[in-house]
Amino acid sequence: MHSQHFYTLTASCPDQVGIIAKVSGFIAQHGGWILESSYHADALTGRYFMRIEIKADSLPFLLAEFRERFGSAVAEPLQMTWRITDSAVKKRVVILVSKQEHCLYDLLARWQAKEMDIEIPCVISNHDTFRGFVEWHGIPFHHVPVKADRKEAAYAEIQRIFDEVRGDCMVLARYMQILPPALCEANPGRIINIHHSFLPSFAGAKPYHQAYARGVKLIGATCHYVTSELDAGPIIEQDVIRIDHSDNPEDMVRYGKDIEKTVLARGLRYHLEDRVLVHGNKTVVFR
Amino acid sequence: MHSQHFYTLTASCPDQVGIIAKVSGFIAQHGGWILESSYHADALTGRYFMRIEIKADSLPFLLAEFRERFGSAVAEPLQMTWRITDSAVKKRVVILVSKQEHCLYDLLARWQAKEMDIEIPCVISNHDTFRGFVEWHGIPFHHVPVKADRKEAAYAEIQRIFDEVRGDCMVLARYMQILPPALCEANPGRIINIHHSFLPSFAGAKPYHQAYARGVKLIGATCHYVTSELDAGPIIEQDVIRIDHSDNPEDMVRYGKDIEKTVLARGLRYHLEDRVLVHGNKTVVFR
Amino acid sequence: MHSQHFYTLTASCPDQVGIIAKVSGFIAQHGGWILESSYHADALTGRYFMRIEIKADSLPFLLAEFRERFGSAVAEPLQMTWRITDSAVKKRVVILVSKQEHCLYDLLARWQAKEMDIEIPCVISNHDTFRGFVEWHGIPFHHVPVKADRKEAAYAEIQRIFDEVRGDCMVLARYMQILPPALCEANPGRIINIHHSFLPSFAGAKPYHQAYARGVKLIGATCHYVTSELDAGPIIEQDVIRIDHSDNPEDMVRYGKDIEKTVLARGLRYHLEDRVLVHGNKTVVFR
Amino acid sequence: MHSQHFYTLTASCPDQVGIIAKVSGFIAQHGGWILESSYHADALTGRYFMRIEIKADSLPFLLAEFRERFGSAVAEPLQMTWRITDSAVKKRVVILVSKQEHCLYDLLARWQAKEMDIEIPCVISNHDTFRGFVEWHGIPFHHVPVKADRKEAAYAEIQRIFDEVRGDCMVLARYMQILPPALCEANPGRIINIHHSFLPSFAGAKPYHQAYARGVKLIGATCHYVTSELDAGPIIEQDVIRIDHSDNPEDMVRYGKDIEKTVLARGLRYHLEDRVLVHGNKTVVFR
Repeated sequence: MHSQHFYTLTASCPDQVGIIAKVSGFIAQHGGWILESSYHADALTGRYFMRIEIKADSLPFLLAEFRERFGSAVAEPLQMTWRITDSAVKKRVVILVSKQEHCLYDLLARWQAKEMDIEIPCVISNHDTFRGFVEWHGIPFHHVPVKADRKEAAYAEIQRIFDEVRGDCMVLARYMQILPPALCEANPGRIINIHHSFLPSFAGAKPYHQAYARGVKLIGATCHYVTSELDAGPIIEQDVIRIDHSDNPEDMVRYGKDIEKTVLARGLRYHLEDRVLVHGNKTVVFR
Repeated sequence: MHSQHFYTLTASCPDQVGIIAKVSGFIAQHGGWILESSYHADALTGRYFMRIEIKADSLPFLLAEFRERFGSAVAEPLQMTWRITDSAVKKRVVILVSKQEHCLYDLLARWQAKEMDIEIPCVISNHDTFRGFVEWHGIPFHHVPVKADRKEAAYAEIQRIFDEVRGDCMVLARYMQILPPALCEANPGRIINIHHSFLPSFAGAKPYHQAYARGVKLIGATCHYVTSELDAGPIIEQDVIRIDHSDNPEDMVRYGKDIEKTVLARGLRYHLEDRVLVHGNKTVVFR
Repeated sequence: MHSQHFYTLTASCPDQVGIIAKVSGFIAQHGGWILESSYHADALTGRYFMRIEIKADSLPFLLAEFRERFGSAVAEPLQMTWRITDSAVKKRVVILVSKQEHCLYDLLARWQAKEMDIEIPCVISNHDTFRGFVEWHGIPFHHVPVKADRKEAAYAEIQRIFDEVRGDCMVLARYMQILPPALCEANPGRIINIHHSFLPSFAGAKPYHQAYARGVKLIGATCHYVTSELDAGPIIEQDVIRIDHSDNPEDMVRYGKDIEKTVLARGLRYHLEDRVLVHGNKTVVFR
Repeated sequence: MHSQHFYTLTASCPDQVGIIAKVSGFIAQHGGWILESSYHADALTGRYFMRIEIKADSLPFLLAEFRERFGSAVAEPLQMTWRITDSAVKKRVVILVSKQEHCLYDLLARWQAKEMDIEIPCVISNHDTFRGFVEWHGIPFHHVPVKADRKEAAYAEIQRIFDEVRGDCMVLARYMQILPPALCEANPGRIINIHHSFLPSFAGAKPYHQAYARGVKLIGATCHYVTSELDAGPIIEQDVIRIDHSDNPEDMVRYGKDIEKTVLARGLRYHLEDRVLVHGNKTVVFR
């Protein structure tokens, strides 16, 4: 990590001879200084992935012109799926929360410390619990109740707010509602969830109780992109913590919070720094 | 851990007031010196568990008399399930192996170093691959092929050898055969397996390939007692190791070996030191 | 963990035959129900340690009477150092902080969620930075500047506030000042610090820069009791996190925060639950 | 990892615009297929590091010609320190051992399983303990006693054997002797040691006893290149394992073995796969 102004190019394309040469050749030809670069060839599918950070002021043109030139000279011939982002443009992260505070406090502490250099245009919750806490930070708070008989309207309202504030991603920071497939599909790769188990074990409700019943010796948390299939989207990050026979489900809930917030923060950071490339139902994460 | 001669008492009983007082009172009354003791009350089932190490020469009688006196004075009134073992009597561990060497080498190195103070009366394998290696250590080797058309006879032969050498436990050190239910049921709590996944995820065949397909970020291993239900017995120990998108199933197999052998050795040690009490389909492990 | 009303007895004494019998016998004789108990014999020093949780309403008398009876009947004959606390009496934790928010946010989130069942009578800081945040939680905030020429007065003021609010322990939640020996010695076993290295490596200033210079592959954090010798007090808890060559000191600072807050919270919890017994310059931690 | 025939290019040079373009351009121009590539810019020293795997049969010439062409066209203009190795040429690893078996068994199991695709031309020991075990594997064993009064001759003999078998690296697999500075300096970056502590804590003798005395809650192991300064060479890999107050130094020795062998194997693998570039007294490890 560094504090310079830079562009981040991420791309994938069918593997062939000379990809790095073409991409880095284009950059070098315009004087571009590469700060960090990562490459991955997926041998089984023959697909190639990359992520390159270029010092912004080393290039003789702005991002719009880069996009145009790189697109025609490199990306099109290589049949690339690609994007380039600007470190000076902060990502806009909308946080969804219910009644548990650990992930919300954790994310706001990181935002406050500028450890995560993002904008939080608003927090949305199905409860009014954290209004005061959120507003004290100067962040707008929206209470959108999700009643059984008007769920559709509630999720339409969430999408409306997200669009209105021009959100880049939605973070489900222990948001205890299951998003409807339509909402998931309308925002592919933009909704990040933290599930309180080491998936694929214990998907669905009450994972710590499931873990207790099975007698596992470690419990975990999983940060993943939300898709229309519950707890089955591409995994970004996971971690575990040791427990033993003396821990009941309530203890697990308590221990679990510590990895939930850490795993969510790590996964979200990878996403925000454009380190995650989705590949089918899996991810390439250039840490 | 210590190198003294001691007895290990393990017991469980319905929870009530005064259990520790009765047990430790009995021991103290006879001058017994407690080296280590652990207790666990399972609040949900109301069952109480304990493990106590007593210095052998602090007691005025031998184990047979301890059994008789403790049985009538303490264990019966408390409706205990209990046993007491003698650290001077080495456990007899029969190792079953196929063609992978990592767990076998690891166990023999620990045996050689007296890190595990056990007897290995023999090694049994469905292949002849490791005969020379095992015999070089002075340990008898039995080649018991498991052909599709005579599996029953093969498993009868394994049970016969196990009985003949008076084995205390069987260790499936990456033994690539599924034991028949009858064999499992005939040796409850005496067969220990190492499964190459973080159960309950990826039970059954080719767990690393399953893990690769799902895109998990950690892979694991699970040491458990074998029951007639495949990969579903009480878990003794588990651990995980981090992988990433660049690791294919073959890499996972390689990394996995490192946790398989460590987790097996830890779980086996807990078992051999009478630190594991089975409780339904779960374990209490007094580490 | 459980939510019952209980007393916690912690004690240490010279090891001898019958300690558990005498202690548990006393408890059982009065109908005391033991919820959890842990014992440790330190073979090298011949000292015995224990921690016992007793259900409050199972005893026929209150804590004052317990203290009197247990003292004369058990503790004195065994030459015990001991104490007993009441789970219904919340510990009073005074937090000291400077300008970094991660530990403060983390502790307040746990307090807010009642995950740590404590009172926070006040927060003290050498900067005014977090006044608003702390006061929003309804917690008094004291700004006590520590100027080079009036340090003595500042620390006297801190002690005065701590006494006035009847604090049970002081938590240095990344408080960036070195407490004077007099303050440390006046509060033995009551001041808890989080040091941002895996002690004894990298004691003193800028541990992450020291770690970077040495090229270690893991960085750590240490929660310890403060003594008059800098970063040398009894260690309560430690943990580490993996880094690599691409991480500069600023990255380490960022990663480090995640273990600092987790390790501090774990260590503090052990302390608050009377799970930590100091033994010379080391600790027995009955987790 | 993959099983193809490939070349591994490792290089470092002063950082400037266009390094990747020049290197990958040269490779692409000759049809070279890049299997894996990693880059690192050290911002503080302005030095650039890289490691590139090229499919052997994608190039129109052999390694000798690659060396000549790449040297004049790319490496010299960029002032590179560089080398290229051939995956078909197995590295020759000489193992030095004393009386502890865990690392030796572990390395031979990996060699046996072809998990480490190396040649072991011989094992050298200051004791005759493992002669039979090593020779059973078909590997020559040299007993070179290190007596106080003829150490110089002993180390000269070790160097002679190493040269005679054309060793690529020496692995001190818990070799309990301190190599003289002359031997270290004669083989820079070619001698790998496993130290049984988390360096820089507890360098020198009896690190587990030092750890016990300090009361740390984790113990570790460090794999590093040997230099003339004891336990102070560039660190390749480290890891830790949790202990608690009930573990005495003998327990730590036992637990420690599990991380020692794992950390040594990982560090050695990185070295053998040319993933380690030494940078002053630190390493860049392209895992």
